[in-house]
Amino acid sequence: MEVVDVSLGRRSYRIHIGPGLMRDANLLNATVSARQVLIVTNDVVAPLYLDGLRAVLQDRELRTVVLPDGERHKTLDTFSRIVDELIDGNFHRDACLVALGGGVVGDVAGFAAACYQRGIDFLQMPTTLLAQVDSSVGGKTAVNHPRAKNMIGAFYQPIGVVADTDSLRTLPPRELSAGLAEVVKYGLILDLELFEWLEKNMEALLALDPAALAHAVRRSCEIKAAIVAEDEQERGRRALLNLGHTFGHALESIGRYEKWLHGEAVAIGISLAASTSRALGWLGADDCARIDALLRRARLPVAAPGIDADEMLSHMSRDKKAGREGLKLVLLERIGRGVVTPAPDDALLRGVLA
Amino acid sequence: MEVVDVSLGRRSYRIHIGPGLMRDANLLNATVSARQVLIVTNDVVAPLYLDGLRAVLQDRELRTVVLPDGERHKTLDTFSRIVDELIDGNFHRDACLVALGGGVVGDVAGFAAACYQRGIDFLQMPTTLLAQVDSSVGGKTAVNHPRAKNMIGAFYQPIGVVADTDSLRTLPPRELSAGLAEVVKYGLILDLELFEWLEKNMEALLALDPAALAHAVRRSCEIKAAIVAEDEQERGRRALLNLGHTFGHALESIGRYEKWLHGEAVAIGISLAASTSRALGWLGADDCARIDALLRRARLPVAAPGIDADEMLSHMSRDKKAGREGLKLVLLERIGRGVVTPAPDDALLRGVLA
Repeated sequence: MEVVDVSLGRRSYRIHIGPGLMRDANLLNATVSARQVLIVTNDVVAPLYLDGLRAVLQDRELRTVVLPDGERHKTLDTFSRIVDELIDGNFHRDACLVALGGGVVGDVAGFAAACYQRGIDFLQMPTTLLAQVDSSVGGKTAVNHPRAKNMIGAFYQPIGVVADTDSLRTLPPRELSAGLAEVVKYGLILDLELFEWLEKNMEALLALDPAALAHAVRRSCEIKAAIVAEDEQERGRRALLNLGHTFGHALESIGRYEKWLHGEAVAIGISLAASTSRALGWLGADDCARIDALLRRARLPVAAPGIDADEMLSHMSRDKKAGREGLKLVLLERIGRGVVTPAPDDALLRGVLA
Repeated sequence: MEVVDVSLGRRSYRIHIGPGLMRDANLLNATVSARQVLIVTNDVVAPLYLDGLRAVLQDRELRTVVLPDGERHKTLDTFSRIVDELIDGNFHRDACLVALGGGVVGDVAGFAAACYQRGIDFLQMPTTLLAQVDSSVGGKTAVNHPRAKNMIGAFYQPIGVVADTDSLRTLPPRELSAGLAEVVKYGLILDLELFEWLEKNMEALLALDPAALAHAVRRSCEIKAAIVAEDEQERGRRALLNLGHTFGHALESIGRYEKWLHGEAVAIGISLAASTSRALGWLGADDCARIDALLRRARLPVAAPGIDADEMLSHMSRDKKAGREGLKLVLLERIGRGVVTPAPDDALLRGVLA
């Protein structure tokens, strides 16, 4: 088992990474002190792992909510359904909510944990690569508004993260690739060494080599934990983690959250951010080719043919990171060094998008 | 103008108390830095004060939500309506939400500010005595669940509180009295001197004497600010502020939030807490009589004739402060000294309630 500590004073917690952790009764019983436990999961994950987890936590007062799978259920209605279940069970303030699933389950369950009685314990058990390397770490919880993603949420830290890398064995290949987009992102913004390691180990990751997976998850969590410890509420440096995300969110929105998985949209967004960095003279053509090559080897898209540049720009200007100083973008000074910067003018962006 | 500082590190803020503050352009412009401002108020307060406040903030990008008045609108639906308005206005993360009204407006608007884009600026402008001495200070925000009060919420501190004591002149007398219940509470739990001051000045308060009102609001805010600074998230000492509230919440629930105002239910609850303290031998009969006399002089009820003791106990056991150690109550060792203590056995409570 590998561990990564997230240092946030009284809200510090530990990320546990490794095979078989979902069945590790000692670990789970040491992490969850509550007597009342609500497990929130979805109808894809439940048949695979729910019974096992219930068995490990059998001495607790257990309840379960099984959500339908999919981003379109990351809504205030789903949040209400979880709260109803907590109230039905007469759950107290010292209860614990366990999120067993991917990013959608973690985000909506985390938001419910943040709000129920103004905050109860919350354990993340991410079962997708994307959730293990990104969404389960750092305390961002949210639901979508019909007109905009992640508009309603809270910064709320879990009491721990238990990332069982065995769960990646049941992940559809497309979702494994989507998670790799975020791992590539960490290398690009902060860690040339990780980027180079990915260039050497991409096939091992796709083949689900346990040591390679554990390394990729641990290194990603270390980078994210360090940034979050420095800037929990994204007032500055944490925005670096949005490399590819402003473009990506616009693509997701244009594709109505159906055409691309989040990680796929981020991969295209990373490629667009690299091209933008090149248009500014920061990256060379060889850097862009190298980035696209690694994303392609991860079986990710690097372009969105037929996308309308004006539609993209319009969606990007509505990005929730846009403040009164206008839109900011994360771009690359070089591979391994991202910077948060005011977006270049529309003419330049239109050229990149064309 | 009187000021009270709430010391919470980076989340510290100032409470401004005095007549005419709602029209104080310098104060409001110095407090609100945002360009985009959403004022949330209700249909009782809006005709009295909304135009004046809009005039003071006229150089901002202003939007307004006018809610129907009343506790039954403190719901997730109302929360959604406020969020919709923020999205309609394309409000960014650096926007500010201003809550102009009583406790319901402050609680639901505060929760919306806490959740919109995971938190935007939030200014409290309480217009009732209850809100000025209690609910606007300390960062508790929430909406009600159909089956339980304040079940969905957040600890979220405002950037400031502007309490214009002139607004108390338009307050129905019954609501003024309801606010006084919380002032009496502060005296009982922590400040014999305040309790004695109230015994001398109750008539001045009821007559809306400006100096008396300013003193009562300031001293209440000072006591609450000190407790909140010590225990922001109610893990210990902050529970003292719940004197009369466990009984009171049960009464409100039994009365379907229509029979008693919150402050009236709290007044009855304070009297019941005093009787319970007496049954334990902590207070004397003279103390109880003195407490009831002061509450009566504030034109508050001190008993709930016809209430069923079993129904009360059943509601109290569902109180959200009940944890796995069972129900706790705030009782009085003497006037000016409250203690948080495990609830005495049901037989004793039944005797008090009978």
